Amino acid sequence: MAHNLLKGKKGIIFGALDEKSLAWRTALRCVEEGAEIVLTNAPVALRMGEINKLAEICKAPVIPADVTITDDLKNLFTKSMEHFGGKIDFVLHSVGMSLNVRKGRSYTDLDYDFSLKTLNISALSLHRVLQTAYQMDAINDWGSVVALTYIAAQRAFPDYSEMADAKAMLESVARSFGYHYGIKNKVRVNTVSQSPTPTTAGSGVKGFGGFIGYAEKMSPLGNASADNCADYLVTLFSDMTRMVTMQNLYHDGGFSFTGVSNAIMDALDKE
Amino acid sequence: MAHNLLKGKKGIIFGALDEKSLAWRTALRCVEEGAEIVLTNAPVALRMGEINKLAEICKAPVIPADVTITDDLKNLFTKSMEHFGGKIDFVLHSVGMSLNVRKGRSYTDLDYDFSLKTLNISALSLHRVLQTAYQMDAINDWGSVVALTYIAAQRAFPDYSEMADAKAMLESVARSFGYHYGIKNKVRVNTVSQSPTPTTAGSGVKGFGGFIGYAEKMSPLGNASADNCADYLVTLFSDMTRMVTMQNLYHDGGFSFTGVSNAIMDALDKE
Amino acid sequence: MAHNLLKGKKGIIFGALDEKSLAWRTALRCVEEGAEIVLTNAPVALRMGEINKLAEICKAPVIPADVTITDDLKNLFTKSMEHFGGKIDFVLHSVGMSLNVRKGRSYTDLDYDFSLKTLNISALSLHRVLQTAYQMDAINDWGSVVALTYIAAQRAFPDYSEMADAKAMLESVARSFGYHYGIKNKVRVNTVSQSPTPTTAGSGVKGFGGFIGYAEKMSPLGNASADNCADYLVTLFSDMTRMVTMQNLYHDGGFSFTGVSNAIMDALDKE
Amino acid sequence: MAHNLLKGKKGIIFGALDEKSLAWRTALRCVEEGAEIVLTNAPVALRMGEINKLAEICKAPVIPADVTITDDLKNLFTKSMEHFGGKIDFVLHSVGMSLNVRKGRSYTDLDYDFSLKTLNISALSLHRVLQTAYQMDAINDWGSVVALTYIAAQRAFPDYSEMADAKAMLESVARSFGYHYGIKNKVRVNTVSQSPTPTTAGSGVKGFGGFIGYAEKMSPLGNASADNCADYLVTLFSDMTRMVTMQNLYHDGGFSFTGVSNAIMDALDKE
Repeated sequence: MAHNLLKGKKGIIFGALDEKSLAWRTALRCVEEGAEIVLTNAPVALRMGEINKLAEICKAPVIPADVTITDDLKNLFTKSMEHFGGKIDFVLHSVGMSLNVRKGRSYTDLDYDFSLKTLNISALSLHRVLQTAYQMDAINDWGSVVALTYIAAQRAFPDYSEMADAKAMLESVARSFGYHYGIKNKVRVNTVSQSPTPTTAGSGVKGFGGFIGYAEKMSPLGNASADNCADYLVTLFSDMTRMVTMQNLYHDGGFSFTGVSNAIMDALDKE
Repeated sequence: MAHNLLKGKKGIIFGALDEKSLAWRTALRCVEEGAEIVLTNAPVALRMGEINKLAEICKAPVIPADVTITDDLKNLFTKSMEHFGGKIDFVLHSVGMSLNVRKGRSYTDLDYDFSLKTLNISALSLHRVLQTAYQMDAINDWGSVVALTYIAAQRAFPDYSEMADAKAMLESVARSFGYHYGIKNKVRVNTVSQSPTPTTAGSGVKGFGGFIGYAEKMSPLGNASADNCADYLVTLFSDMTRMVTMQNLYHDGGFSFTGVSNAIMDALDKE
Repeated sequence: MAHNLLKGKKGIIFGALDEKSLAWRTALRCVEEGAEIVLTNAPVALRMGEINKLAEICKAPVIPADVTITDDLKNLFTKSMEHFGGKIDFVLHSVGMSLNVRKGRSYTDLDYDFSLKTLNISALSLHRVLQTAYQMDAINDWGSVVALTYIAAQRAFPDYSEMADAKAMLESVARSFGYHYGIKNKVRVNTVSQSPTPTTAGSGVKGFGGFIGYAEKMSPLGNASADNCADYLVTLFSDMTRMVTMQNLYHDGGFSFTGVSNAIMDALDKE
Repeated sequence: MAHNLLKGKKGIIFGALDEKSLAWRTALRCVEEGAEIVLTNAPVALRMGEINKLAEICKAPVIPADVTITDDLKNLFTKSMEHFGGKIDFVLHSVGMSLNVRKGRSYTDLDYDFSLKTLNISALSLHRVLQTAYQMDAINDWGSVVALTYIAAQRAFPDYSEMADAKAMLESVARSFGYHYGIKNKVRVNTVSQSPTPTTAGSGVKGFGGFIGYAEKMSPLGNASADNCADYLVTLFSDMTRMVTMQNLYHDGGFSFTGVSNAIMDALDKE
């Protein structure tokens, strides 16, 4: 059921790869709720994915942008504002990639050139998006920026590897830039720490399937789905949450605040 | 603008004293968003306040209940379910009172009989509400319970006195009971940590006026108002946030994640 | 190996029941490190336990005190200062008891008269100890007070029941009173969140044995023992940690900051 | 007064520039406590500083190492083990530098080539130190690694700029690597979040003087000095804290857990 929560709002969605993506589901929900959107992703991801299908449904232009290239982001905001005929109201940053994970290097055997690329793509990219928008004055007062993150930024999950450190930095960027953008334009910046979700990106992490089962058993409400996440993000982009900023918000069915569940203890007892 | 976010939902609102109350503003917004509600407060508060005005606007019955008396809460849920012809979807717990603060006793000179009453009214009361509902099976699946709290549960604010400890306990009750109610009925339980708000209750705290100014200067977005809070609570009662549970959510314009603001440093420099 | 870390220091140790107790092991280590101590416990616990053995080894008087009775605590501080010929340097609060757990009542079926007693004994007691000392000026400048707590104050552990809420409040008391006592006398107040430990008290908690095994598997360093805890507490009572205050310090082999360990995932995979 | 807390232990201290440095004070205290040490710093810092004075007092070799060059770190561990005739017991990582701060670029106008260097030097460097040691098996079982950090990793302090994000990542590296090194060799890894300290490095931060005064007024015990920090670090390198790992430990006189102090409110009232 739609509520027109984003009626008249204009947003940019980063990172919709295919229909399992958190960003894909969110794009659909934002449009259902009345928003106009622009879709963006790295040129290489655009080639791999099926974003044109989504673009059609959402009546949204696709503007390629490499989040590590400032000029790409300037072009993205310029073109988006031209398309909308005005400034942006919300941004979803759903971007992350670990070269070391992809190349199968473990956390105790990192290649640091890869690491710097991981940080550039996965964490510094949020700063770059925010700084570009800030300097171009591209976001309306009371706009909302959300980046997706994961609980590994707070606690060790061995297979999440260097992405944990990148996400910790990402969350810090949200706090730090949230301060400055809050003062200048009342723009709020938050991160949402989502349950492990069976997306195409997530499935690259070693042992991901088993881990999703673990999280499901540990979470009193079970894992949050991509559609649940889309719903939640809509509230954070809406005017109903104007005073929520500089936070890391867990959206995980209670996983992060459960020390141990009876379901896990039962499973271990059987063993 | 209303979005029908709570259409068909039935809720109980504790703690609406007068039109400055967070609970009062929230009651109005819930009804605007399509909810039906029941209002409740302690008998003594009902006599002091103006709740009948609110009841009339909201077309809501007022059912007195002392949160320290289980039979009162049973009666509240029984009557509410009769009134609604069904179970409850959401509950707002906006209840807190420190006898030591009221009697002017400082934090280093507490009367412990007063303290136990403070804890009973301000923290254990949330457990009592939840346990009563749980045992009566009074809340629908995917229901939502929110209690209001304050950042003094995380960091020392000298004048907040023993309420800090009561709020820390309240937040723990939300986590602990959120686990059990999540498993049984997918009911979520959260606390919202709100900016200091110029309510009639808040104004009893020593130095409250100066403190509101401090929080305003420290918060990148300024203090969240009672109406902002009402908006945010509506999202937490809605179906858009089903996977958010066992959390303490800050609603304070960034206060809690600001170490120091330039506005505060400037004010101190002048001194 | 002893280091004379507490040479010349005088301390009060609450809660040594038998030789498995955290307080018992700590008393021994404090004396080894050069401290003089006074032992105290509730009259009923003194009768059940073997504290006289410990008193003999430590050459320490035993002064009974019920932590819910201010006059008992006044007597304790008065007698202790007489015994030492001076003020106190450190206090260990190792006190906690849940009547509901003891009576087998689950967290969703609490008896609230029991709960208030639990809070009075397990949480408010720390305030009472601190307030009594503060008003009697019984602690030397730069003194150190530590209370033992558990991670259930941050995350849900279903079997820990209402003690989770009591511990959350206890930790808040440490922060809140730490502020006031820091300003008045540079006294620091902290809590230590210890691994589950096979003490006589701990073994009352349902499923405790299985849980210790779980924590062992989840902790990169394994569970911290009572002797490890005693060592750590000695550092917190010493002059080497003068600027550490108002904190909750985890002493648990990494349990609290591990999201999941390979050992747990392996055990679940076998299942 | 020395306690022989580090008798027989061998450590590597990064980052002693001059006698105000936290690392310098710590080196002195470690040697007083019976440790043998190796000093290291970047070649450029060695030229600017007065480390030879310290080396003489500590009877410690100085081995240059650029923390962004793995071969330098391999050489450092190799030479240190040759010098000691055995493995290392403790490491202090006191390394951090922001090119953007140094060049006067504000947080909303970062140069990202500078940022990547900042991250490499200030955060990834801890990973590099740990990974080098891990792969060379250079640290004894139950060894201890500590890195210095700052509360800006948790809350916004506008002038701390990009170092906040680097420190957030640094703290995550400590958690993540602490998991792996704990399992392999019982090595613990922690960060210490120190009060602002009037070091030569710190004084580069804009408005640092005023900020130290603010922190002093906000901290119930006042700011922790470099010598206080050295004392605390000795306890973390000693065998008394073997089960403390993967944590961020505040050493700041209570600053981090004080929401507001009466001293700050008084200063603001005067204004």
